[in-house]
This record gives sequence, C-alpha cells and structure tokens, in this order.
Amino acid sequence: MGKRPDEHEGTPEKRGDWVTYRPQIKVLDPTVRDGGLMNNHKFDDDFVRAVYEADVVAGIDYMEIGYKGAKKQYPPGEYGPWKHCDEDDIRRIVGENPTGMKLSVMADAERCDYKEDIIPCSESVLDAVRVATYVHQIPVAVDMVLDAHEKGYEVLLQLMAVSAIRDEELDLALDVIFDTPVSAVYIVDSFGSLYSEQVRSLTKKFMAHAERTGKEVGFHGHNNQQLAYANTIEAIILGANRVDGTMYGMGRGAGNCPMELLVGFLKNPKFRLRPIIECIQKHVAPLRSELNWGPEIPYNITGQLNEHPRAAMKFLAGPNGQDWVAFYDEMLEEE
Amino acid sequence: MGKRPDEHEGTPEKRGDWVTYRPQIKVLDPTVRDGGLMNNHKFDDDFVRAVYEADVVAGIDYMEIGYKGAKKQYPPGEYGPWKHCDEDDIRRIVGENPTGMKLSVMADAERCDYKEDIIPCSESVLDAVRVATYVHQIPVAVDMVLDAHEKGYEVLLQLMAVSAIRDEELDLALDVIFDTPVSAVYIVDSFGSLYSEQVRSLTKKFMAHAERTGKEVGFHGHNNQQLAYANTIEAIILGANRVDGTMYGMGRGAGNCPMELLVGFLKNPKFRLRPIIECIQKHVAPLRSELNWGPEIPYNITGQLNEHPRAAMKFLAGPNGQDWVAFYDEMLEEE
Repeated sequence: MGKRPDEHEGTPEKRGDWVTYRPQIKVLDPTVRDGGLMNNHKFDDDFVRAVYEADVVAGIDYMEIGYKGAKKQYPPGEYGPWKHCDEDDIRRIVGENPTGMKLSVMADAERCDYKEDIIPCSESVLDAVRVATYVHQIPVAVDMVLDAHEKGYEVLLQLMAVSAIRDEELDLALDVIFDTPVSAVYIVDSFGSLYSEQVRSLTKKFMAHAERTGKEVGFHGHNNQQLAYANTIEAIILGANRVDGTMYGMGRGAGNCPMELLVGFLKNPKFRLRPIIECIQKHVAPLRSELNWGPEIPYNITGQLNEHPRAAMKFLAGPNGQDWVAFYDEMLEEE
Repeated sequence: MGKRPDEHEGTPEKRGDWVTYRPQIKVLDPTVRDGGLMNNHKFDDDFVRAVYEADVVAGIDYMEIGYKGAKKQYPPGEYGPWKHCDEDDIRRIVGENPTGMKLSVMADAERCDYKEDIIPCSESVLDAVRVATYVHQIPVAVDMVLDAHEKGYEVLLQLMAVSAIRDEELDLALDVIFDTPVSAVYIVDSFGSLYSEQVRSLTKKFMAHAERTGKEVGFHGHNNQQLAYANTIEAIILGANRVDGTMYGMGRGAGNCPMELLVGFLKNPKFRLRPIIECIQKHVAPLRSELNWGPEIPYNITGQLNEHPRAAMKFLAGPNGQDWVAFYDEMLEEE
C-alpha cells in the first residue's frame, strides 16, 4: 500500500496504490503489553525474547514490551515484570537493544507513577512512551506527555474508547493533545465496535489535526467484531501511518489486529512475514488454549452494543460461559 | 444500514445511514450448503432442521439447503442427502415450508445434471436455484439459468473466483450474465483475497450492470483474511442488496461471513439475532472441533497470495498440519 516515496512527500492525500508502498507506515507490536492483560503480565523470559527477536527480524518498527504500572496499585509478585518494565527486566531480554527497532512502554493515566518510575531516556534502553488516556483524563495525560518528552523520549498518545466520545468533546480533546509534544496520536477502538465508515470519518478528523501540527495518526483496533484488521486497513488508506498488530491477534478479550495479516498486507520490502509465523507457531499459538483470546460471540455482542468487553470477559470466565444466549439476554436486559 | 424506504426508491446512490435501514437487503444462509463441503454433506436431519428453524425465526430471506450435485459424480451414500437435495429429503425437514422464507439450492456448472435433476418449480418446495460458475463456464451457466427460469424458479448466479478474473474478461462476462433472466448476480470472493478497495471497485462495476438491467448485486465472502464480514459491509454500502452469512461462519476452509455479525449489523427490525446465537450454541459450535473451519494461518497465506485455499486445506489435514512455517515456505516455493 502506498504512494511511491517521491509522490508522497508533502501531499495531503496519502492514499496508496497496489504496486508501491508508503515508507512512512510504522508498525508497533504490543503483543506482550496487551496480551499480558490476560495473565497479569506473567510471561516467561523465553516468550518475551521470542517476540522481541521475531519483531527485529520481521522489520517491525516498535515493540511495546509492557506497562509502567504503579507498583502500589499492581504489586510485584501478584503481577509479572511486564506490568512494570523495570530497566533490569527489559535489559535481561534485549541487552542494549543493538537493533533498528525501537522499544516502547505504555503508561496509563492515573495508573502510573510516571514522575518516579520513568527514568531519563538517556539512562534507559527504552525509546518511546505511549501514554494511554480516556478523554476525561486528558489533563493528567498531558502532564505525562510533557514529563516523558522532557526526559527525552519519543511520546505517543492513545486516545481510548474513541467510539464512546461525543463529537464536541472529541474536537476539544484533539485541539489539546495534538498541540503537545507527541509524535503520534492513536485512535483506539477499545470496544471493537467501529465500522469502516466510522473509522474513515474518525481518521479524517484526526488527520486534519495531524496536518495542522505535523504529527502522525495511529490506529489500534480490537477484534470484537472481526473488524480489527479491516479497520486498520481503512485507517491506513485515509492516511494513518502508525498501526498496531499483535502476534496471532493476541490481546485481552477478542484480541487485536493480527500481525500476520497486517504484515502480509504491507508492501514495504523491509517487512518479513516468515519470522512472525514462526514465532506464532512456536510461542504464541500454544498459549491460546490457556489464555483463550479471540472474537467469541459474547465479544461480538458487546462490540455491536458499543460497550466495554468487561461484561463478556466476566461471563466467559464464569461457570455458565458457554451459554451465549443467556449473555445476550443479560446484555439486552441492561440496555 | 440504509436509507429510509421513501428516500431509497429509484436513487442510483444506495448508501445507507446509521439510524434507518434498507428493506431491499436480503440475506441468504448457505450454512448447510457451504458447510457440507467439509463433511460430504452428511449432516443429520436435526442439524438441518435446527438451521432451518433458526433462519425462519431470525427473519432470514433465503436458506440454501444444499447442492443439486450430479449423482454419477457424487454417489449417494458416499455423499449425504444435501449434496443432491432430492425433493423427499427436503420435505422431510421443511414439509411444505409454510413460512415467508425462500428455499434455494446451488447448482454448479458442469457438476449438475440440471435438465433431469431439477424438477419444475410447481412440483418442488424449492423457490430458487443459484447457479455457480467460473468465468470459463459461462456458456453452460447461461443454459442452466435459462433451464431453471423456464421451470419457474427464481434464478441467482454466483460468479466464482472473481479475484482471479481479468478486467476485460469480467466486462464481457457481466455483459452476458446480467442479460439472462437472473434476479441477482453475486460477487464471490472464492479465495478470500479481496481487500475493501477491491470490493468497492468490483461492486461499482457490478452495480452499473444491475442498474442497466434492473437486477440486484450480491456478495459472498470467504474469511481467509478475516475480511468476509468487513467486505460484506463494503458491498452493502456500495449498493449490494443480496448478502450471504453462515452460522458461526461455518463453511469450507476459512469459512464465510458470520451470520451472527451480519444480522447484528443490519437494522431491519425483521431480523432477530437471538435465534441465531441459540442455533450456533446448540448445534453449530459443537461441530467446530470436528470440522475445524476458520481463518487459520495457512488460509491467511493463500488469501494473501490470491490462490484457491485447496493447498491450505490439504496441508492442514496432513500429518504436518501444525507446521505453518513449512506451508509458508512451500507456497513461496511454488510462486
């Protein structure tokens, strides 16, 4: 996908064609970060190293290795190392990360002691901090962006649950966040409820701010309605240059846009599909029966209702988890 | 989805909006027909009856109950009753079909003794015949369409493997088939390889012929790249009024557009999601571990390569079926 490099620069219309590619597209892999929401980030080192090594060989641009979660809120022991991403833990996997791939962590607004726990970039093997925020937390998120930027990191911003934000609020939010020192703002379909037409109209709206400020737009999908990959393509077509994919779609609940589909679609010759398939086959697929992510029917239902999947997660983990009709009845009852 | 009825009639632009619906959209359920490709159509009566009853209550417009396969080619016994759809077998399930739902069968070009095996519509409980054809079989398919039309059936036409037809050939084919007495021509993404932009451009092309001849355009997707549902929506947005969904996406290989997603998307109040979820829970999901359909990685690969999934099916059924890397290497070797 993408215009030839020489056609692309400076053009507001960033659509691609079928025999070239858009070198500006950068892929981030949050497999460990998002997948860890299913096991309190208790992955063993071999797993994290396998994802890291596959991403490097596959030409992935960023690996998001976990969260900078507050230790008071998420006690070590109860939560594995990728909930906190201490420098020593990361270096045990990546050393000095002598590769072209950048490493990022996610920092959640109100769930991160960012002033203390995020050390200066010059002392860290990390390259980027992705701040995740709901629209009502933007003042905190802005402070986190400034903090990480001053510490020397590239800063990305995830605006979560975008399908549940009213237009007026969204416009106000975009005015503010695109004026912070972020390099990209991600549209996040937290409920997996967006249809392609909605992705197109949101991406256009975000792109207007990106062009005003010289930043990039990103897209992070969820697969509740089997639309994460399709929606990622739509966002790319409308100009989003930052996209997320996870190995085998691994991620909480219905999971994410599968990396093996995304990389098969992107035409930049730097991307390699084979190491991704190998990592999935050896390390990720074997976890499926235990962690059980994927677009199962209760997630279809919450996605269709534009609701957070937490009710579906809870139901599926309960004693009655196979009674999808009961879940449907329960959700309509609540309406 | 869809304009209000009074806005819609006669407008060439058939896009919908978010709070109304398009009553012209008709859904066909080929669960038994397409799913039967995995078990030689040896479903027991309870299963076929469950799908029939769910479709009726759910407001589905057509149920495609199987094939009219040639008995010399597909010997009874070796193949179950839904490979031939003898009148007695159908009536054992549906009686006189005293419902608003139409019943259809598929008749494959060159794999059907249509002159003998398709009886006059007045003697049959069937309402429609869907003729399936590759582009090189169109002369046979046209004869089949005329035969079924003369016998009194509504005739639908599936143009298969559309992603592998050159534009010039496709234009010639559409000139011919839209001028036959069919009520709808379906775009069939046999390889599950189409991306949304391609679906949009194909649907526009088909729609031009539909408007010229007063017929409808349909879409039948396959889920090799998890795009069957997304592509079905795109076709609807561009004006396709005939769409297919199967229970739990059941169908050969990667499966089809899941009915539970499609019906959740359509806004016509005649559609009901609950009976579909119930049918899936009780009758369809239990078959998954045995029949094993779904968008597994080898299907992603054949979809990306725009190839028939038969290599993936064969590989997955073989002793080495979990070695997806070996399959990837094999497919690239063949290129």
